[in-house]
Amino acid sequence: MKLERVKGMRDFSSEDMILRNFVLNTIRKGFEIFGFEPLETPALEYWSTLSAKGAGGSEILNETYVFKDKGNRDVALRYDLTVPLARFIAMNPNLPLPFKRYQIDRVWRYSDVAKGRLREFLQADIDTIGSDSMLADAEVISCAIFILKKLKFREFSVRLNNRKILSAIIKFSGVNEDKEIEVLRVIDKLDKIGKECVRDELSKIISSEKIERIFDILDICGEPEKILQCAEELVGESPEGKEGISELKKLLSYLNKFGNYSEVKIDLSLARGLDYYTGPIFEISATENIGSIAGGGRYDKMIGIFLGREIPATGISLGIERIIEIIKERKIFSFEKTNTKVFVASTNETLFEETLKIANELREKDIPTTIDLRNRNLSKQLEFASSIGIPIVLIVGQKELREGKVTLRNMKTGEQKTVEIEKILEEL
Amino acid sequence: MKLERVKGMRDFSSEDMILRNFVLNTIRKGFEIFGFEPLETPALEYWSTLSAKGAGGSEILNETYVFKDKGNRDVALRYDLTVPLARFIAMNPNLPLPFKRYQIDRVWRYSDVAKGRLREFLQADIDTIGSDSMLADAEVISCAIFILKKLKFREFSVRLNNRKILSAIIKFSGVNEDKEIEVLRVIDKLDKIGKECVRDELSKIISSEKIERIFDILDICGEPEKILQCAEELVGESPEGKEGISELKKLLSYLNKFGNYSEVKIDLSLARGLDYYTGPIFEISATENIGSIAGGGRYDKMIGIFLGREIPATGISLGIERIIEIIKERKIFSFEKTNTKVFVASTNETLFEETLKIANELREKDIPTTIDLRNRNLSKQLEFASSIGIPIVLIVGQKELREGKVTLRNMKTGEQKTVEIEKILEEL
Repeated sequence: MKLERVKGMRDFSSEDMILRNFVLNTIRKGFEIFGFEPLETPALEYWSTLSAKGAGGSEILNETYVFKDKGNRDVALRYDLTVPLARFIAMNPNLPLPFKRYQIDRVWRYSDVAKGRLREFLQADIDTIGSDSMLADAEVISCAIFILKKLKFREFSVRLNNRKILSAIIKFSGVNEDKEIEVLRVIDKLDKIGKECVRDELSKIISSEKIERIFDILDICGEPEKILQCAEELVGESPEGKEGISELKKLLSYLNKFGNYSEVKIDLSLARGLDYYTGPIFEISATENIGSIAGGGRYDKMIGIFLGREIPATGISLGIERIIEIIKERKIFSFEKTNTKVFVASTNETLFEETLKIANELREKDIPTTIDLRNRNLSKQLEFASSIGIPIVLIVGQKELREGKVTLRNMKTGEQKTVEIEKILEEL
Repeated sequence: MKLERVKGMRDFSSEDMILRNFVLNTIRKGFEIFGFEPLETPALEYWSTLSAKGAGGSEILNETYVFKDKGNRDVALRYDLTVPLARFIAMNPNLPLPFKRYQIDRVWRYSDVAKGRLREFLQADIDTIGSDSMLADAEVISCAIFILKKLKFREFSVRLNNRKILSAIIKFSGVNEDKEIEVLRVIDKLDKIGKECVRDELSKIISSEKIERIFDILDICGEPEKILQCAEELVGESPEGKEGISELKKLLSYLNKFGNYSEVKIDLSLARGLDYYTGPIFEISATENIGSIAGGGRYDKMIGIFLGREIPATGISLGIERIIEIIKERKIFSFEKTNTKVFVASTNETLFEETLKIANELREKDIPTTIDLRNRNLSKQLEFASSIGIPIVLIVGQKELREGKVTLRNMKTGEQKTVEIEKILEEL
């Protein structure tokens, strides 16, 4: 038998979990502060839902765990939390709008393990359904920034683009409409595989002349206003392009009012891989070179695919695994190795009842407490408490007990003192 | 396209989630108070792990979602949290023992939807690895009771049995050893399908005479001491049976010291469906007729299957879905419909900046706050806030603003008053 975890998946020890739970709780709290409500959908969805035209698209479907259940239905592990949300909205069309929900949950993608990617990972999403205002987009971005600041991120940048502008640029470069989504998907890889590889891949789809025209535009950089001005000239009379630019202007103005403007850039090369985006798209990076830690955008058409009538929607997803990695590396926060506060040690088997009584009382007072379950001598018990990082050991000894006392040992300093049993709580 | 959730799976709305999160947090806190540490394992495990001889057994494997991944590996969605834990322990053989961990996570079983069973549901497990003392069993049972009391359960009973006693009884009734596990699995259904159906199923395996002998024994009821005395006579000189009885006696004595004795019964008909149990088994019911809400037992052999050397283990699993159902029905706790505390309404588009500023300030103070994202008039905004159950609306009006004030409306009573912007926090 192979004694292994499934490839690309991880176990999280208690030490990992203490950090993870701190991050998740901070994110959850931030979501709720911004008025997002919890929602949970199943891990499995019908393949027909996840593979609907206009949902995630072929790139991600190639990475999706799909199989037949025992009833011969085609089911799949969700690759994101957004397509299931669209399915939920379509099944609950009478929800008061806008509907603002968050979900922090696992998703699965059969991706390249050699590149350090996990095949099971957490996403933390907020989405606002039923508002076409750029205020909704500004709010989800601001909420993500609010949380990242709580997690003590200081250096990060928000990159904005708009699928409508991208689409107009691609058309302007002479690319046929039916090639547009393919070209978009390749452009999306710029960050990951670099310009030369993107050039190679594009050359299979369009002429080198068109490629150069696209690159010329994507390379434009500078102040948001300057880029928008260049883009304005490029898209010319294209109604789509003009709409995209007007949306970004409004979004910038709202972000300004949320107080986040200074960290925001327009990046015309930002594409985002998923098919469902229709308007503004955005990514937040921790530093210039580390890749994105949050991303999202507007998807005004996807719910319509399921519901039959369109409902506008926008959202952002925090890349929890990457955020946790950075927090760990930077050692910004320090954590205990264990949640347990007290080990009640016994010096003698005959004192078992008294030992348990003290543990019971601490537990009744909500103090995380543990006891010896292996009938060990005192030094072994102390060794154990130290090995798992419990900060306090209460030693129950015959002599002290007779005086209604126990010994309290601080495992970090090694200090010991006797305290009255009634006063243990005060001492902790 | 079918617009459906996968059969047997559920979406949980924000109202559901508020109740669920309360229950989960209470459980998590109870686990930590008893010194259990968080661990998380992946949703997928190799089929070879889950189907190992001595793990869950054939009954549950028939209900397991198993499939080939894109690398042609046989993988499966876990049917419980215990087998993955055994795999984790075997892969981390140098952990300090006892290792006390909790996990609250989803499991998947392709079970009978017609009987109201979910195919995706939460389990909340604690397990103690590396102690063969009945104190460890008493502790996990006490921890479950501690939590159920926090959740305001008052009427419940703990039923105890021991696989060793069951095994001795089955042998005593003249059943061959190779039929034992089959007979056990049928007995396990007593609660669900009743005596007659169990008799029918048993008649396919063993003679009616043996069936009656088994039933005679299983029917014994009364005080724990009386039942153990009867069992003692039945198992006679069987070392296995004697060990089982001695274990139950110790377990009862420890439970007594934890203060839970009065609610504990011995039920010789309790079998528990999973193959891996080797010693005491236990179930907690909310009332006599509603089925169990927690169950577990000792499994001293399973880790050995993976590791090659045995490590004793025991644990209990809370049936969260059933617990939540009962809490909902009994209306023991009351909850808000939303986590959001304040809706900041604007009476005029020109006041947008001031409205957003107030919302920003509330959010900076960690007050869950939301704003209008659809440019609605005041009455529509109030209607919306009321429809999702937000308790307070702050109305930002031109006249009040000039005096540095806003109107605070209590949505439950309909009362309104004007308050100074600086004093909003006090008023909330």
